[in-house]
Amino acid sequence: MTKKHRNGEIWEFEREMSDGTGGGAGAGDVILGIDGGTTSTICVCVPFLQPHSLHLADPLPVLARVEAGCSNHNSVGETAAKETLEQVMAEALSKAGSNRSAVRAVCLSVSGVNHPTDQQRILNWLRDIFPSHVKLYVRNDAVAALASGTMGRLRGCVLIAGTGTIAYGFTDDGREARAAGAGPVFGDWGSGYGISAQALTAIIRAHDGRGPQTKLTNSILQILGLSSPDELIGWTYADTSWARIAALVPIVVSCAEAGDEVANNILQDSVKELALSVNAVVRRLELCGSDGKDSFPLVMVGGVLEGNKGWGIAEEVINCISKDYPGVVPVWPKVEPAIGAALLAWNFLKDSRRE
Amino acid sequence: MTKKHRNGEIWEFEREMSDGTGGGAGAGDVILGIDGGTTSTICVCVPFLQPHSLHLADPLPVLARVEAGCSNHNSVGETAAKETLEQVMAEALSKAGSNRSAVRAVCLSVSGVNHPTDQQRILNWLRDIFPSHVKLYVRNDAVAALASGTMGRLRGCVLIAGTGTIAYGFTDDGREARAAGAGPVFGDWGSGYGISAQALTAIIRAHDGRGPQTKLTNSILQILGLSSPDELIGWTYADTSWARIAALVPIVVSCAEAGDEVANNILQDSVKELALSVNAVVRRLELCGSDGKDSFPLVMVGGVLEGNKGWGIAEEVINCISKDYPGVVPVWPKVEPAIGAALLAWNFLKDSRRE
Repeated sequence: MTKKHRNGEIWEFEREMSDGTGGGAGAGDVILGIDGGTTSTICVCVPFLQPHSLHLADPLPVLARVEAGCSNHNSVGETAAKETLEQVMAEALSKAGSNRSAVRAVCLSVSGVNHPTDQQRILNWLRDIFPSHVKLYVRNDAVAALASGTMGRLRGCVLIAGTGTIAYGFTDDGREARAAGAGPVFGDWGSGYGISAQALTAIIRAHDGRGPQTKLTNSILQILGLSSPDELIGWTYADTSWARIAALVPIVVSCAEAGDEVANNILQDSVKELALSVNAVVRRLELCGSDGKDSFPLVMVGGVLEGNKGWGIAEEVINCISKDYPGVVPVWPKVEPAIGAALLAWNFLKDSRRE
Repeated sequence: MTKKHRNGEIWEFEREMSDGTGGGAGAGDVILGIDGGTTSTICVCVPFLQPHSLHLADPLPVLARVEAGCSNHNSVGETAAKETLEQVMAEALSKAGSNRSAVRAVCLSVSGVNHPTDQQRILNWLRDIFPSHVKLYVRNDAVAALASGTMGRLRGCVLIAGTGTIAYGFTDDGREARAAGAGPVFGDWGSGYGISAQALTAIIRAHDGRGPQTKLTNSILQILGLSSPDELIGWTYADTSWARIAALVPIVVSCAEAGDEVANNILQDSVKELALSVNAVVRRLELCGSDGKDSFPLVMVGGVLEGNKGWGIAEEVINCISKDYPGVVPVWPKVEPAIGAALLAWNFLKDSRRE
């Protein structure tokens, strides 16, 4: 039985293409890799290469790249998340001059996938969009982030600290473990959201007499164009999207660099929390071997771990981890997580052929 | 210029009443007191008594009492909050066999009023609903809670710890100060929401290896009918209304009573946070006099401060405060905050006549 896949307005472009639903296996085949985060969603369309030619293709050629907003269903709701995901996939195929029949595999790595039921729900939804020959993979966004640093090999640990944070690890024999990544209600203090929420809290505490004065007050009020800490409350609840709050991180970093103790303590706490997440994963998976000294890659991803030159959050996190696990080898990915997702799809395809 | 007040469907009942828009000053005049919280909203309609007869009326006779859901605009949005508030006022008048023309004053004490602009926005909205002779007062819900323990006198401090938490104080000469009350994004760890969110966090940390094991895991999963901590994440974000999360407090208390150290530490932290809020208000207002030893009333309100017999959160908070301020006199209100709001309206009316 061939079930017709979904044809909403979003897929109109396919009809306008010369070969219609044609395509099939051939030189024009493609893979879609999607990195769905809480702040942004990126979809890349890459050519499907035969195994012998992949190693020659470095960097992987990208036929199309499309960017959109949040696709974490826990943050924006399921309907909005799905719309964003379907839109980026359609646009990437359209820009690549391709269509769904030419797709060999889709790897959707998206934040908010915390349980097999989340995975299954998204797989069922994807199944309705694509023809039945397309291989579909749904993973937590941390998995693509890891793959972006290991060129598709699932071994080692990744630490993401962007709007949210998660540590995720894999062993060569296929075991996996994660820590944190459950979003704002569950702490996640090392994340961009966590750092910013603590800064907002510190301002209110300084204002009402529960905590020490801090440079954060003037810096954050000024950037938001507000005149008093009381107005911060209204500003915050007017739109509690996690990314909007997390965007305050650079101000916290610059206050810490300017010597503000409150801001400095917030960043120190965040370092401890991030290192704790990685250590929990490394310990459970014994990534460091039985003597605790084996080397393992730690892929570092996300805005919190990038670009602060003075107060180096990433460096502090690595220092903190290497006290317990001296074999930690930080890896700064050369490609973005969406490419990691495409590499994963390619590896999954290869493995499924072997089976 | 007499502006016609609003007549939506909600006010239909007034037309069906025999005297229509009649009424005016007289024996049938009433006062509306509203306590608008994050979990529930209560409106009472009480008779407007002449000053000389008020003291004779103990307890204050209540003509009607109506209850509804959340009216904190930061939690459910402004439209829903206003609908709830208008509904309870209309229902209370209808049940009392009264109407808007018989209203002398409305005191709306509602959570989420954090800034003069919040107050003004709600006042403008109320102004459209009631005839121009009606006196209108909008305050933070903490003010009515204080009044419920002091029979309408604004002096001393109130500590609310329900779904949210706030400490709010007044001096006899009209100065006021508050601490906390800014909602989940800003910490408020002593609140019901804060206690529950920390319990949820502790479960995830135990599960992923970042924290110690705790009885909270089985207790909370069982009550929610979930089979694993990973499912908790989906449960939490399916509906993040603050009251739904805060409803887990009794489980945290029973785990602490059963000797669970993680639960115990969460409650200890909450005690420290609640005491810190009160102390900040007392210090700023010098409620304890210049020698720090004067007595002052501390009105205790909210689910977190009631009804736990084994692990007494309220008792611990008072012990903690009395180390710094031995003059603290805890007051357990005999009437509910909505009655406090009505008493406030009556006092405001009395004061405005004197002026």
